[in-house]
Amino acid sequence: MDSQLKLLVEESPDAILVADREGIIRYWNRGAELIFGYTASEAVGKSLDLIIPENLRGRHWEGYWQVMSSGETKYKTGLLSAPGQRRDGSRVSLQFSMIMLRDEAGAMLGCGTVMRDVTAQWEKEKKLREQLADCQAKLPVSAGEL
Amino acid sequence: MDSQLKLLVEESPDAILVADREGIIRYWNRGAELIFGYTASEAVGKSLDLIIPENLRGRHWEGYWQVMSSGETKYKTGLLSAPGQRRDGSRVSLQFSMIMLRDEAGAMLGCGTVMRDVTAQWEKEKKLREQLADCQAKLPVSAGEL
Repeated sequence: MDSQLKLLVEESPDAILVADREGIIRYWNRGAELIFGYTASEAVGKSLDLIIPENLRGRHWEGYWQVMSSGETKYKTGLLSAPGQRRDGSRVSLQFSMIMLRDEAGAMLGCGTVMRDVTAQWEKEKKLREQLADCQAKLPVSAGEL
Repeated sequence: MDSQLKLLVEESPDAILVADREGIIRYWNRGAELIFGYTASEAVGKSLDLIIPENLRGRHWEGYWQVMSSGETKYKTGLLSAPGQRRDGSRVSLQFSMIMLRDEAGAMLGCGTVMRDVTAQWEKEKKLREQLADCQAKLPVSAGEL
């Protein structure tokens, strides 16, 4: 079964990656290649900054060091949302997990993540919000929910 | 790295599972336990029918046998959407990948999937659509887009 799980991870269309305690990318699958535009040989060994938009790096690393030093995260079962940056500089809306990786003695090795590109969904929802705001602006005052 | 990938898969909040050529569940991670409400020991060895709503089973298996016999799927890089069924009978909206698993000689072993519970997003979008329809119904005809 282990070889099948490895194949599943390698071939997943979701970006699956592992970073070590220092935030250096140690594993990068096919989905990450598709979503971000870097091959595994280009990404492995680089900092996660590779895919973090510059204006979000400060906040990212503050959280990352805290999680790595404390071994605790508040996102155990939930999913996070944040924009990522592709090779061509464009933004991608990501929804992702954060999975703590420890050795058998419990020492932190780094973290893993499963990232899904939710740009299309995000844009669909944004368009609906805009259409709703436009419509509400056209309503006569008496028909509005005042 | 293999042991870290295995840990990542085991602990992922996404449901990650493997089914064999016959559609029998062979691997079931922590996320699948959380989303569907069955433990790994309850799910492994059972048919995928465990999580497929009854009215969708015919369509599911038709597609499944076709993929297993042809070794081809049209969903190589994309994501599928379908409702699943939890242990308590309630529905869950799922967005998932389908990853072909083959042995080294290329023979089909089954398939793997990474499933994300998108029920909350789905409901948010549905509510927006309803609000928009309600608003459009209240618009004076002259302000409508006729």
